[in-house]
Amino acid sequence: MEHHMNAEIRPALDPKEFRTALGSFTTGVTVITARAGDGTAVGLTANSFNSVSLDPPMVLWSLSKKAQSLPAFTTTRHWAVHVLAADQESLSDRFARRGEDKFAGLALESGHEGVPLLKGCSARFQCKTSFQYEGGDHIIFVGEVVAFDRCEHPPLAFHAGRYAIATQKDPSLPKPRSARLAGSFSDDFLGYLLGRAHFQFYQSIRENARAQGLSDPQWFVLATVTVKDGVSAQEVDEAIAYSLGEPSGPILDSLVASGWLERSTRAAAGAVTFRLTEDGRDRALHLLAAAKSLEADTLGRIGYADGAVLKTLLQKFIHSTNPGLPDLWGDA
Amino acid sequence: MEHHMNAEIRPALDPKEFRTALGSFTTGVTVITARAGDGTAVGLTANSFNSVSLDPPMVLWSLSKKAQSLPAFTTTRHWAVHVLAADQESLSDRFARRGEDKFAGLALESGHEGVPLLKGCSARFQCKTSFQYEGGDHIIFVGEVVAFDRCEHPPLAFHAGRYAIATQKDPSLPKPRSARLAGSFSDDFLGYLLGRAHFQFYQSIRENARAQGLSDPQWFVLATVTVKDGVSAQEVDEAIAYSLGEPSGPILDSLVASGWLERSTRAAAGAVTFRLTEDGRDRALHLLAAAKSLEADTLGRIGYADGAVLKTLLQKFIHSTNPGLPDLWGDA
Repeated sequence: MEHHMNAEIRPALDPKEFRTALGSFTTGVTVITARAGDGTAVGLTANSFNSVSLDPPMVLWSLSKKAQSLPAFTTTRHWAVHVLAADQESLSDRFARRGEDKFAGLALESGHEGVPLLKGCSARFQCKTSFQYEGGDHIIFVGEVVAFDRCEHPPLAFHAGRYAIATQKDPSLPKPRSARLAGSFSDDFLGYLLGRAHFQFYQSIRENARAQGLSDPQWFVLATVTVKDGVSAQEVDEAIAYSLGEPSGPILDSLVASGWLERSTRAAAGAVTFRLTEDGRDRALHLLAAAKSLEADTLGRIGYADGAVLKTLLQKFIHSTNPGLPDLWGDA
Repeated sequence: MEHHMNAEIRPALDPKEFRTALGSFTTGVTVITARAGDGTAVGLTANSFNSVSLDPPMVLWSLSKKAQSLPAFTTTRHWAVHVLAADQESLSDRFARRGEDKFAGLALESGHEGVPLLKGCSARFQCKTSFQYEGGDHIIFVGEVVAFDRCEHPPLAFHAGRYAIATQKDPSLPKPRSARLAGSFSDDFLGYLLGRAHFQFYQSIRENARAQGLSDPQWFVLATVTVKDGVSAQEVDEAIAYSLGEPSGPILDSLVASGWLERSTRAAAGAVTFRLTEDGRDRALHLLAAAKSLEADTLGRIGYADGAVLKTLLQKFIHSTNPGLPDLWGDA
């Protein structure tokens, strides 16, 4: 990998560049809540949180001197830090905005000294201010943790100005190995990984399909027909010829012959289309249910967080390598 | 997703549980360096770094009062924070250990006031202590940033006690959609994503293979034969029958007929094996080179960091769903 140091050490710091450089340090996302002197709930999104001390247990975060909530936090000594979970992006957005009633409609709990607590977070720390320190255009709040709890939700991360999810590296995975023949594949080749993951996943779907008398191409075509009510051979070809590797016409015909599909004519176009028979529909739903159960089982094995990241990356991958396939789901 | 709050608010804090809860806040990983009074280079790994102020530009981090390097940092006012890149795990490990000469063998640069600077990091901040604050069993160092630089290396992250890589969420990706038929697939179904990503990637490999007169199964078998010098039909079946969906014997025979493979006998086992002919080898290397070039192009499109995470997750996925396939690369 080439190193592109963006610039020499510069005498005057560019604020935009400085923010960008700071963004290279990945953080979690927290919402910090308290009660103002008049009892109003206040809260804000912050990624300046970090641990400080284990004994006594202490954490810190920084608040802009221009923040609306500054008077509340310099008055009260009690506040709570919520480490947001991966599915709490909207909560982060809500508490990052100014002015509105940020707590409207949220189910709250009441913490130590009445501090409002949010639910569904990865961790919560209830704190009491130990120190308020000067920090340029911010005040640094250092608090002793008086109570905390956590749950198994994977946390939201923040990196380079965007929400992110962190995937743990797994040191127990075998290192990539090259093949004997120079220039051959290693087992780290993306095509191998995609193919093997796909076929390994597909194996038990295939077993179910075979038990129902379906070949691989028949199964692919059938899964496509479940998405839409009536498809033409041309539509199937456009959508999945790349996965079939052969024209879908004969496969559609074979599914008609075995009673899964029937021919119909779509009024608008007048084209011959194929749709599930009642029997085909029942049998397809049975196969789909098994496939979904397989998905749930598989995602459980690699963990919810990694499963979510894998799906996100596959979507990015499909999007960025799309050769211009028609959108099968578009007008489903 | 179910919420499992691990415990009620507890009166006395359990240190181990507290560390675990803190671990739910994702961070980057930094190495902080300075020169001690005698000119010796000192450095340590810290994830307690964070930004504090934009104007003036300030950052902070915390150092244990028991740290060997504490006297150095309370004496000098000059230090540098290195935000480590995803490929700098070993540097993190090195600077997290006690006692040894942590800088031995490292190519260093010299920063402001002679502070030793490491190379290949995601970002570097050269700082001058503004404040040293009391923080329980740690000292909080707040420094003004006098210089910084960064490069495009994706950063290392740390989460729940392990190294991690953060994948940015992509708000521009379409939301998952369900199909018309109740119980049918959505385009978020893992099997669909894996299959589509695989086939989309495979499409241009297939085009090349077709131009050489190879069918899909022939290409799969051929790629397998390039890994090892001489494989039997049984070995191919054990390794890739799940991807072929059919026995490999007839495919191997067809590759012999077209001059890509030749039969040979492995001395040890006496079994009939197949190996590339000289011509087959030349043609296979041509196909492999095109496939590798496709991989490089594809990884470039989704970005180095996401490509690395995708590969890691596919490896985890393959590992956790492995039905017990033999290791083709094992004795290659």
